[in-house]
Order: sequence, then C-alpha cells, then structure tokens
Amino acid sequence: MKVIKDIKEMQRESEGLRSSGKKIAFVPTMGYLHDGHAALLRRGRGMADILVMSLFVNPTQFAPTEDLSNYPRDFERDRRIAEKEGTDIIFAPDAKGMYPEGYQTEVSVREISKPLCGASRPAHFAGVATVCCKLFNIVKPHFAVFGEKDFQQFLVIRRMVLDLDMDLEAVPFPTVREPDGLAMSSRNVYLTPEERAQAVCLSRSLALAKEACEKGERNVQKILLLVLGALEDARLGKIDYVDMRAVPSLEKVGKTIAGPTLLALAVKFGKARLIDNTVLLRELWNP
Amino acid sequence: MKVIKDIKEMQRESEGLRSSGKKIAFVPTMGYLHDGHAALLRRGRGMADILVMSLFVNPTQFAPTEDLSNYPRDFERDRRIAEKEGTDIIFAPDAKGMYPEGYQTEVSVREISKPLCGASRPAHFAGVATVCCKLFNIVKPHFAVFGEKDFQQFLVIRRMVLDLDMDLEAVPFPTVREPDGLAMSSRNVYLTPEERAQAVCLSRSLALAKEACEKGERNVQKILLLVLGALEDARLGKIDYVDMRAVPSLEKVGKTIAGPTLLALAVKFGKARLIDNTVLLRELWNP
Repeated sequence: MKVIKDIKEMQRESEGLRSSGKKIAFVPTMGYLHDGHAALLRRGRGMADILVMSLFVNPTQFAPTEDLSNYPRDFERDRRIAEKEGTDIIFAPDAKGMYPEGYQTEVSVREISKPLCGASRPAHFAGVATVCCKLFNIVKPHFAVFGEKDFQQFLVIRRMVLDLDMDLEAVPFPTVREPDGLAMSSRNVYLTPEERAQAVCLSRSLALAKEACEKGERNVQKILLLVLGALEDARLGKIDYVDMRAVPSLEKVGKTIAGPTLLALAVKFGKARLIDNTVLLRELWNP
Repeated sequence: MKVIKDIKEMQRESEGLRSSGKKIAFVPTMGYLHDGHAALLRRGRGMADILVMSLFVNPTQFAPTEDLSNYPRDFERDRRIAEKEGTDIIFAPDAKGMYPEGYQTEVSVREISKPLCGASRPAHFAGVATVCCKLFNIVKPHFAVFGEKDFQQFLVIRRMVLDLDMDLEAVPFPTVREPDGLAMSSRNVYLTPEERAQAVCLSRSLALAKEACEKGERNVQKILLLVLGALEDARLGKIDYVDMRAVPSLEKVGKTIAGPTLLALAVKFGKARLIDNTVLLRELWNP
C-alpha cells in the first residue's frame, strides 16, 4: 500500500492507471476509520482493480463554531485498517496544498443542499461538493463509494456528478450500525456513557417509522409523531430536526407519501451532533 | 472531421483517445466563427494530436435582458472553418442535454468574477465557469485555448482549473484584430457602419495607454484619462466601464502601477456591447 501526499503525484498515478485500463474505486474519508468505513472499502475493493482511499479532514465543510480542531485523528490506526481492507493507495493531502493562497472556487448544488443538514449547516454541502470535485479530479475514479448515513451528502454528490458530467458513478452503501442499532460515526467517541445509551433512540425511532410504513401507514404527520415520541426517551438529546423529504429531489412532501421518501433526523448530545435516516418506500426509487 | 452531439459519446471518444496516449487540445466556442477563432484552432492544432472544438451557445452565461435569442448562428459556415483549420471533432451538444430537468449545480470563482464585466453581468462568469467545467469533464482535454479578448474570462478559467485540480492547462492566445485594430468578435455584426467606424476608438485608446506606459507613465489616473479622452471620439458609444486591475488577482490597483496590470474596457454601441483590453507591464507577469 502506497501513501501519497502530493496532489500532482496522485494525479499522475491515477492517469497512468486509467491509461493502462485499470478501474479505480475511491472511498473519500475524513479518517478515524470505523467499521462503516471498512465496509465502504470492502465495497470499493470488490468493484475495481485499484482501491484508493483519501484521508483529509476538509476544513471548508466545518463552520467556525463546529468541531474541526477537535475532530478525532489517528493516522497509524487508519493506515492499518485501510491496509487490512486491501487499499492500494491512501491519498492524504494537507490543507495548504488543497486550499493554497488565492483559492476562491466553490461548487454548489443549489436546492438539494438547502433542507435538513443544510438548514443547520449552511456552508456545509458547498464545502463537501467542492472537496469531492477536487478529489475526483485528482484521483480520477470510475466509482466513488459513499455511506448512506449521510444520505443527503450522497444525493448532493450524485447530483453534482450528473450535472457536471463527471465521468464516474457515485455508489451508495447502507449504513453500518452498532449491535444496538446506533449508526457508526467517528463522532460517537464524543458521547458520554449515558448519552451513548440514550442515542439508541435515533435508530429505534426510524425503525418504528419504517415498520409502520411497511404496515401501510402513509400519513406524514402520524409518521413524524411516531418518531418524535420515540425520541422522547433521549432526555439528554436536543432535536435539531426531524423531517421527511422526497427522494432524490429532497422537495417537501405533502400530507401523505406515495413515492420514495427520506426520513432524516439530527439530534445533539452535548458536543456530538448525531444524524441518522431511513428511506421509506425505497423500493419505488429507480436511480 | 466528426460532429458529435451526444455527451456520453464525446466522453467515451475522449477517454479512448487519452488511453491511447493522444494529447487533446480543446477550443470552446459559441460558434459564428471569425478569424480570431480560426487562430485559436491553429494554436490548438499545433500543440496536440487531436483538436476538439465545441460549439454551444451557453444559455446560463446570458442574463434575461441579453442577446441569447439573437446571438448569431451559422453551423454550416462554422463547420467549414473548423474543418479547414484541421479540427478532428466538433462537439455540438444541445441545451437540454447540457441542462436537463432538475439541473442545479454551479461553479463559481469568487473574487476574480466580481469586477469589470462581472460587475455589469453578475451571473455571467458563474455561467462560463460552470459550462467550461462541464465541457472539460466531457472533452477531457490536456490543453484548452482561450482568446485574450476575454481576458477576465481566461483568468476565471485559469483560477478554476488551479483551484479544482483539473488535469489540464488553460492556454491564453492574443486577441486577433481587424486591420484597423478592432478586436474580432461575433458581436461586431450588430454594428451599423457608423458605429463600426467609431468602434476603432476602443483599441486606439488602449494602444495610446500602452505606448504611454512603455514610455514610463505609471500614474493610474493619467492612464485612465488618456483612455477616456480617446474614447470621446466614439460619440455613439456609451462607456460601461474603463478600469485597471492587478493581474492575475484582479484586485484594485493603487495610484501607480508597479506590476502587471489589466487595462480593460466595455462600450455599448446600440445593442452591441464591445469589450477590449491590454495588459500593461505584462513582461512582469510570470504565470
């Protein structure tokens, strides 16, 4: 496994690999890898000749008030996990190389970026879209794998890839969960034991909604009340949002749902902001 | 010479050419070619194995009040000129393919896009940057050639290429002029004979400034007054702007110039908005 830090070197490497007919799968990460990342790496490993993982804590997707400086990091551990999962190249640029003096370009995906996490974090998805655009231009992958825990992020990237005619496929991968259902996240390390115990409400509330929907419930208000009721057990948590939106447009839904619908939520526990989601009527989505 | 209208077909063609080791030069145009475009094609022809020209009147770089619907078009004439200059492929997509329903992504280059033409045409450079990003992803060129008549456009594209790590070089090419000095432009056809005669003032005013600078003039106010004086002969023209800006940042200049400086102007004659520019102390610019 190679570790490449230089942007031009990574680009030359990828251009050479593409020219020699190799298919490249790419898993962008901010490091501090958990089993969710490992699953993305395995997915990428299975679909291409070369597996590239990037490791870059992207400053432009954090607001000044957010946890950029505290974001957990452990390069040696990340390197071991990546190697174990068959990664060929770790691309680990530094922030000065990615955003040199005079840097001023932004990629924004308008409507999809506005609701849900975009409402709480206004500049977040432009930061995500821009860094992914850069990483795609450097790594030149045929496939890029994204975890569905960040479902809105996946939709933003998918829309950007379509709109800007990027020659690659954005591949979604199901959320990996702890045994009790909590979605894996590098930010779970922020939780106290008590918060951790209550955080199980997030996935439990979504599971209840999913089950109700499978039994025929289509009323948006009733589904949302079911979720809010289940979240009441998370006494230390503060709800940021609970919302339902059409997939893939993320437009508002009416009183009842008839097509694929993202049910997404964000809850703050102390300094940890946890998110989770499920797609209701997903079988109706034909991406 | 091939004419390709389908985006995916062009992309496959370019991917194949790159894989077989061919270098691709690209000249994006809005058609209605003149000798300026022909010169860009010859420049591209001379630097690569394959020459691709795009022909697309991009709606997103026109404001609703501008001349999109009247923009001159003549595909058969364009095809003959492109073929004569040794073009291998004309890429001519349609607007529905480039901006399908649900399209919502924009690339913006912040500071450089604001002054000069960006002040008169607020959405213009985001439209230009976005369509060039798309065209680069489709045509996958090693070089993209831009005329210096649109010097700000060249700087915007160059900055985008750097910032987004696009694996290509944006190449500037000197403005091609009519015998009397008027910069060639597809929009010159809008001019009445009287306006056409007066339009020579634009290049003449720039030449006076250039000459003064070569003789040692560094005072910004004096250079601008020289230009404004020479533009007084264009009685039918209405000045949109005359400005001096640092190259390549396009930041404001102080009272005197000490480094490479763009002197740019825009003048409206009836429905024709003409632009021209020169770079003073260009020998100090080391791109």
